[in-house]
Amino acid sequence: MNSYIVIFQPDGVCVEVESGKTLLEAAAAAGVAIDSACGGQGSCGKCRVIVTLGRPGGQSGDQLSRAEIQQGVMLACQATVEDDLVVEIPLESQRTDLRILTSEAGAEPSLTQDDVPLARSMSVHVFEPKFGDEEEGDAERLLDAISACCSGSFGDFEIGLSALRSLPTLARHETDLSAVIADLDGRGYVVSLSPDARPTYGLAVDIGTTTVVVYLVDLDTGRFLASCAHLNDQVSFGEDVISRIIYTQEHETGRAELRDAVRQTIDRCLLRAAEEHGVTPDQVVAGACVGNTVMTHLLLDIDPSGIRRDPYIPAVRALPTLLGREVGLRVNPAAPIYLAPCVSSYVGGDITAGVLATGMADSPKLTLFVDLGTNGEIVIGNQDWLVCCSCSAGPAFEGSGLEYGMYATVGAMERIAYDAAADRVTYRTISDAKPRGICGSGLVDALAELLRTGVIDRAGRINLGFPSPRVRVRDERPEFVLVWGEEIGREHDISLGDDDIQNLIRSKSAVYAGVATLLETLGLETGQIERVLLAGGFGNYIDAGNAVTIGLLPDLPLDRIQFVGNTAIAGARMLLLSRSARRRVQELAKRMTNFELSTTRGYMDRYVSGLFLPHTDLSLFPSVARQLEVEV
Amino acid sequence: MNSYIVIFQPDGVCVEVESGKTLLEAAAAAGVAIDSACGGQGSCGKCRVIVTLGRPGGQSGDQLSRAEIQQGVMLACQATVEDDLVVEIPLESQRTDLRILTSEAGAEPSLTQDDVPLARSMSVHVFEPKFGDEEEGDAERLLDAISACCSGSFGDFEIGLSALRSLPTLARHETDLSAVIADLDGRGYVVSLSPDARPTYGLAVDIGTTTVVVYLVDLDTGRFLASCAHLNDQVSFGEDVISRIIYTQEHETGRAELRDAVRQTIDRCLLRAAEEHGVTPDQVVAGACVGNTVMTHLLLDIDPSGIRRDPYIPAVRALPTLLGREVGLRVNPAAPIYLAPCVSSYVGGDITAGVLATGMADSPKLTLFVDLGTNGEIVIGNQDWLVCCSCSAGPAFEGSGLEYGMYATVGAMERIAYDAAADRVTYRTISDAKPRGICGSGLVDALAELLRTGVIDRAGRINLGFPSPRVRVRDERPEFVLVWGEEIGREHDISLGDDDIQNLIRSKSAVYAGVATLLETLGLETGQIERVLLAGGFGNYIDAGNAVTIGLLPDLPLDRIQFVGNTAIAGARMLLLSRSARRRVQELAKRMTNFELSTTRGYMDRYVSGLFLPHTDLSLFPSVARQLEVEV
Repeated sequence: MNSYIVIFQPDGVCVEVESGKTLLEAAAAAGVAIDSACGGQGSCGKCRVIVTLGRPGGQSGDQLSRAEIQQGVMLACQATVEDDLVVEIPLESQRTDLRILTSEAGAEPSLTQDDVPLARSMSVHVFEPKFGDEEEGDAERLLDAISACCSGSFGDFEIGLSALRSLPTLARHETDLSAVIADLDGRGYVVSLSPDARPTYGLAVDIGTTTVVVYLVDLDTGRFLASCAHLNDQVSFGEDVISRIIYTQEHETGRAELRDAVRQTIDRCLLRAAEEHGVTPDQVVAGACVGNTVMTHLLLDIDPSGIRRDPYIPAVRALPTLLGREVGLRVNPAAPIYLAPCVSSYVGGDITAGVLATGMADSPKLTLFVDLGTNGEIVIGNQDWLVCCSCSAGPAFEGSGLEYGMYATVGAMERIAYDAAADRVTYRTISDAKPRGICGSGLVDALAELLRTGVIDRAGRINLGFPSPRVRVRDERPEFVLVWGEEIGREHDISLGDDDIQNLIRSKSAVYAGVATLLETLGLETGQIERVLLAGGFGNYIDAGNAVTIGLLPDLPLDRIQFVGNTAIAGARMLLLSRSARRRVQELAKRMTNFELSTTRGYMDRYVSGLFLPHTDLSLFPSVARQLEVEV
Repeated sequence: MNSYIVIFQPDGVCVEVESGKTLLEAAAAAGVAIDSACGGQGSCGKCRVIVTLGRPGGQSGDQLSRAEIQQGVMLACQATVEDDLVVEIPLESQRTDLRILTSEAGAEPSLTQDDVPLARSMSVHVFEPKFGDEEEGDAERLLDAISACCSGSFGDFEIGLSALRSLPTLARHETDLSAVIADLDGRGYVVSLSPDARPTYGLAVDIGTTTVVVYLVDLDTGRFLASCAHLNDQVSFGEDVISRIIYTQEHETGRAELRDAVRQTIDRCLLRAAEEHGVTPDQVVAGACVGNTVMTHLLLDIDPSGIRRDPYIPAVRALPTLLGREVGLRVNPAAPIYLAPCVSSYVGGDITAGVLATGMADSPKLTLFVDLGTNGEIVIGNQDWLVCCSCSAGPAFEGSGLEYGMYATVGAMERIAYDAAADRVTYRTISDAKPRGICGSGLVDALAELLRTGVIDRAGRINLGFPSPRVRVRDERPEFVLVWGEEIGREHDISLGDDDIQNLIRSKSAVYAGVATLLETLGLETGQIERVLLAGGFGNYIDAGNAVTIGLLPDLPLDRIQFVGNTAIAGARMLLLSRSARRRVQELAKRMTNFELSTTRGYMDRYVSGLFLPHTDLSLFPSVARQLEVEV
């Protein structure tokens, strides 16, 4: 088999691949993120690239205009490598510089005396061995010394082989050693030993279907040091968990590819965060990972196919604490890696960690928790009970499947307002960059504004009689222009089309129907909800009023609604730092009752009724009805 | 760096090595065992080889005669690879086909209901998951099923990652799975899963300084299936533990080389034993290893240098149960590997396992246990107390350092008698092969016979006036010819020289002085010893009377002396099969009080007094005095 060199611009990343691989596969191998919504099926048209040198093979694809083809534009998933190539990734197809929610909900977890982090370094006083001590090896003297400092915290102690190998050179004179002790589900485990007190670090990792967020935490103080977020390299294999499971079933090495992709993503984040602070991978001595059930399976190379096959059972729900070398991360090979337990196939460790972080399970207040990522998960309950479900909201609010939708990245329009009288759209973009598209929070705003101003009707259809040049039909598609291309020096205008709006409506309706179904099942009225916590990857904030206006959240007084950001990473950090949090999350995972929406007839009816703005039944949204001056 | 091909004859084993390596190193790399007593120093002359093709580099060495040099004979440790070579290993330099003590002392360990083997397979009934079970993963259903069968045996259960990976394809319909459950120091650990009940096997391994013995055991029945013994490949790096420690200190990669050498030796034995029975490495799901303290350190790549440096402290005495992949053996990577605990730097896991196997720690009888391998270890005690020590006996009784000494291999003279009147030597060889040399049991016999017949005096000097042509001086060396070369069609006669005899006397004196010193320290008389158990690598038997005659064992009624063979491997097998044995051996290791001979002045005095046959002080050996018709 021949192989060729492919260079990806603008970053100049170079990779050697076998002939016949697609450019999307080549990009994945190079760790270059190219947008792809359909998982390489050739149908979404997101992965446009320009081949500037060399002759690729494959087809051009239906999505491309003749002009594009003449310019050398191809779909990365359709073009194959049959020559050395230089490939330019246009701004629109790049998936870099993500601005991802790394802010935490709730109070900073504080380290208390009796709370045992997943690993921590402690000073251990070792005595010099003396003649006559020959019935005690260095290891036994060390264990005596460790038991003397922290026997209360652990049932039993064990020295890892790599720590043991370093022991003979360290323990031959009376000295204070720095020992890193891990908590392996109650057993003490010596990860490493060093002559001086070196700082030790831990990772909190949120493995999202779309995005991986890594926190670097100082284990001595519990302090946050740095974060790094990156698109999950698995995105090249499919946008959602189902398409990734299919990939593992249709490709012999699929599971290994997906495992490697997520490991690489985590390692890349880790190295970036660690480099900033001069931290070596060996100093990273613990990791707490949270992810949905499929992400958890794929990280560990466990077959996830049961998750999408009746009766929808995962291979494993809760795991013992593993070691770095078993999970294959570039941390200290003996570092403990804790994985948050899942509840079921579609409610995973990101949600149990999120519930932990919000504290809703300790509160008497009836709380609705909605985490809208690539899927939407819903938890309702309080200190006495917890019920949860998952709904296939799809990634529309993450920008996927929309012509100008995009992740919360540099240039994403994150706040949008429309002054109909002046026919003026005002907006703010992430990093104040030139606008490239619209992220989740901007989409919520846009939808609400267009509804309020009458640009769209309650079915989400664009009113072609609306008196503004922004309303137009392009290629038989009605659309509203948010930004004129000429204003910002781009060829294309940025618009929201009828089809985009339908996509968003389906997504918000899936979430709302989930909430409503769960409430009815529990015999609760909307008004009984004392608190709504909205978490997810919309951007950095969300306008609660607009979220109600479009019918994403139930119509409740706005002071009950709180945007809590990324609760998964907040929970991961608590798991890293506290044994009581680790015990608590195991309890929570058992306590949370899973409710399967997909088999509830009422759910589909509600979903269909919700395909209006805010809803078919306006009596459910009296405050919106007042805004829209509609008789209920 | 150039590399060349070296082919070793007669087996035709081929290896590619870098130019400049010695033939001894090349042989080690090829897994071809060449005799070497000095560890490659060029001083013992044991590693003679004949280069039949190609031009080696290096020197010929002082040990070789001009005739040998003309025939192409070289010392493998001095000749270097600077060309493609064909190398013939003469019979005398080969170290293959070892006949090693694999017989066990004591009764066969039997598996009782409440005894938990290190791993065993059991049938587990798994139910089909049903819709609504989604809060239990496959892993949780399996753990429930396992707990139902054997919760009494284990505190807690954990599924190994590789077993977990095989689970989703196995546990989707109601079925009986075969689960291999290991005992990780009380915790249950699922090693592997399979749809059918496949037989599972375990290894018992005795890692001797000179010889590695491996037993393959059927874990379902506890039955012995096959054994294989092989010279420890580490022999090429030095004959005794001290020279191997020095090798690790003087060579940067020395520790890794020694680790690889012993791993290779164990793997080779395992594969041979397994092949015989059609067993795949994956079916080998447990291993119990016993070895002296240095062997244990080297297997695990732990620096052993503290063992030969004041205050003579090992890095570790007792280890938790490890996994196959950690130890690097070619068994199932998740197989538990148990290592017998050591007492001190010079009393190791082979001795604690031996004490376990003899049952001496459960008996009211005062027992003296002597294990004479490359070192000599002595344990005295009974059910109430145990004291032990080690003495540097050296490997003379294993044949090393003697011109015609050899391991208990095909062609070794294992029983020898001399009829002085007829001037006839009668002997038996192992496998009834043409005699090549003399192994331990033959050496004990020869020494006793020569003493009784007056060929040698009590100082071990050959009486040159003895009326037999067998007594002669060759190259200024007095010697006694045991076998005439012409009788057996060999160029050389097989003889025992003054220097060989001195070597044996030093060795037996070291052991006897150890016993005597220990007895005095304990305030015991020789006559109080109710039982002597002699273990070791002499051959297949030993003549107890002759062992007393030469002063190796104290002068006690012969019915108190029992040859118990290889107690280390017998103990290893018990550890493999029984949790109570594993708990017992940990207790024993703590109970055994170590006594350091090297610092006891009395020991050296006794050693010097013992450099006579049987001893300077004949009153200690009244029965021998009677035999020799000497006035005490």
